Amino acid sequence: MRSFSDFAIWYTPGVATPCREIAADQSKVWTTTNRGNTIAVVSDGSRVLGLGDIGPQAALPVMEGKSLLFKYLGGVDAFPLCLGTKDPEEIIRTVKNLEPCLGGINLEDIATPRCFDILERLSREMNIPVWHDDQQGTATVEVAGFLNAAKLVGKELDQMQVTMIGAGAANIRIASILTKVGVKPRNIIMCDSKGILNEERDDLGRLKSSNPEKYRACMEYSGASRECTLKSCSRGSDALLCASRPVPGTVTKERIKEMADHAIVFAAANPEPEIWPWDAKEAGAYVVATGRSDFPNQINNSLGFPGIFRGALDVMATTITDDMCIAAARELAKVAEDNGLTPDYIIPNMEEWEVFPREAAAVGEQAVREGIARVKRSRSELLEMAYLKIKRARDETMLKMERGTIPKAPKGTSL
Amino acid sequence: MRSFSDFAIWYTPGVATPCREIAADQSKVWTTTNRGNTIAVVSDGSRVLGLGDIGPQAALPVMEGKSLLFKYLGGVDAFPLCLGTKDPEEIIRTVKNLEPCLGGINLEDIATPRCFDILERLSREMNIPVWHDDQQGTATVEVAGFLNAAKLVGKELDQMQVTMIGAGAANIRIASILTKVGVKPRNIIMCDSKGILNEERDDLGRLKSSNPEKYRACMEYSGASRECTLKSCSRGSDALLCASRPVPGTVTKERIKEMADHAIVFAAANPEPEIWPWDAKEAGAYVVATGRSDFPNQINNSLGFPGIFRGALDVMATTITDDMCIAAARELAKVAEDNGLTPDYIIPNMEEWEVFPREAAAVGEQAVREGIARVKRSRSELLEMAYLKIKRARDETMLKMERGTIPKAPKGTSL
Repeated sequence: MRSFSDFAIWYTPGVATPCREIAADQSKVWTTTNRGNTIAVVSDGSRVLGLGDIGPQAALPVMEGKSLLFKYLGGVDAFPLCLGTKDPEEIIRTVKNLEPCLGGINLEDIATPRCFDILERLSREMNIPVWHDDQQGTATVEVAGFLNAAKLVGKELDQMQVTMIGAGAANIRIASILTKVGVKPRNIIMCDSKGILNEERDDLGRLKSSNPEKYRACMEYSGASRECTLKSCSRGSDALLCASRPVPGTVTKERIKEMADHAIVFAAANPEPEIWPWDAKEAGAYVVATGRSDFPNQINNSLGFPGIFRGALDVMATTITDDMCIAAARELAKVAEDNGLTPDYIIPNMEEWEVFPREAAAVGEQAVREGIARVKRSRSELLEMAYLKIKRARDETMLKMERGTIPKAPKGTSL
Repeated sequence: MRSFSDFAIWYTPGVATPCREIAADQSKVWTTTNRGNTIAVVSDGSRVLGLGDIGPQAALPVMEGKSLLFKYLGGVDAFPLCLGTKDPEEIIRTVKNLEPCLGGINLEDIATPRCFDILERLSREMNIPVWHDDQQGTATVEVAGFLNAAKLVGKELDQMQVTMIGAGAANIRIASILTKVGVKPRNIIMCDSKGILNEERDDLGRLKSSNPEKYRACMEYSGASRECTLKSCSRGSDALLCASRPVPGTVTKERIKEMADHAIVFAAANPEPEIWPWDAKEAGAYVVATGRSDFPNQINNSLGFPGIFRGALDVMATTITDDMCIAAARELAKVAEDNGLTPDYIIPNMEEWEVFPREAAAVGEQAVREGIARVKRSRSELLEMAYLKIKRARDETMLKMERGTIPKAPKGTSL
């Protein structure tokens, strides 16, 4: 909108032109509107941060923050949609009804186990990418860190023993992606507060219907370790991946001491990790990662979703596959590798914003390879598109700061 | 977002603070989030411009343009939601599910008669303003023009004979608002393509169930004119309000010639009026208005919704009443009156943007008066709030133009 005379173009009568074009050829919606750059950040507020079921209104600040990150880091136009229902069928209906105006859906902070079914159904029934950041986003970033940690300690993925503490949306998805990049399912031991996930659990029957994903985890993992206990399950493990309670001490130093040499410890609970990094190091861990920005190696979802959606949208992908997540994870890992890995640097941070265009290009290229892209673009085209779109979003912020439309950056901080 | 260190404030962990506050006191959502400035522009694409039922994707450009106008003219953050369903119940459920994150709903381009029911149900069942611009918006702006036209010709509202051509969403609502500002229902004659709307229509039985609003119009209007015909229905009328087919010639010069002295003719069909203004003038009309920006006296919805929503949101109104529409119409009329009425200037144009803060203040004040405002503010406070918010939106546009983020305004145009 440059002047009042533009109203005649963008609004009536000019707006009738793209309307007619789309009516004649629905695929024109991708080029004549902003649909292809617009996503909704959808939550029912049933599992917000570590705060639990605080409802859709109280979830709104998180969804607003997320939308802001989508734009600032990925150049993606996102808006928050907090739903006044927790009924899975109702959530699915509502989101599906919004498809004509959206390029993608980011599900957020929806409780387990219904989040699994909602993601699965929407992914299958909608022709746009549907993403649950607490599953796929967390898994993508954590797997990127895991790949680099394994490189650092010089261990082969298919030989590694991995113990996972916590069997919620994050760890279940992380395990699934790990097996796709080379970790053997039989070498994964997963546990929750009740014990080891295996075929001998008392609650298998109930899980089969109430939480099929967790049931599958019981059948697939911990195979070689039926005899192990909660206490002994990390003994001799190469890696300990925690996504459980935000209480330091949940994982003890004794547990770390029993692990294999050059142990990898990811304590991802927020806002406080399951074990403080200095305690893990003191107990012998070689690489430690947390969810905190004030410690090294932050497993930070913000490293994933902005670039991944940028790439998926730039090829108008119909979905986001696990292989697209893996392509993103590998590229994310590579950015850190290009900068030189150390035990305190296995994953980039948000300020290294080359991450986002590079991920976007990797994800878009993978979508083209899988035949789920509505438009084919080369890696270098995708890289340039993503770079320009993200730069534009960042430049707008700078501009507003310069003019005082928003407050200036505090001294000593970088943008 | 001023710097990367802000992520710790706006996103995790800082975002938990407003989440907790809202969880403890839901009303905090209005002050700690942008909910109170956010609306959705909702359409099913079933009656888009003059194009008809072109579907939700083809409707998207209109909803995008509308969202842009909301921001630019009213400082309101709006996003388009085009729904993949035409089922009224499904539309109602979907929109209701979005309530926790929205300050208001603008319904747009939904076909008659289901638009009546959808508006009525949503208005009653939601605690935020729900607005159907094709009904309330059109009525507000047209009534503003009508009030000034009546002043110009020196006729009393309760004495005026008004003929209305077209019995769709717009004219039915215009008639209803007109009767609330002083026109007598018995002095209104309304007709559609089949004939006069009165108690003797053949289709009354069907209308009662299929289109109750039109049925009511049959019962209320044209009372004194049961003998009149489509051909004779405007004979002697003081005003002819057309919202019918965008085909010049739909209203003939002969029809205008038969009207009373100093006739008022509003030919509002888009993109072409029912009669060209020069033909109407030649036939004796004293004041002529159309929907076109290239003729004088544009009945332009954009003069209504941005200011009306600005005012409703600034007092966190729970609904938008007819009296709030009337307050907006009177203020809109007054802006033109303050500038000096002439037959070619009965209503302001969009460039006179004092319109929007003034309408906002009038609407907000009326909401406070009716006891439907969540927060009480004085007229002068409302005027200043609206002015600052709208100016900020406009300044951002200027800024982007200066920097080339968006193209510069063409030479010779004003902003």
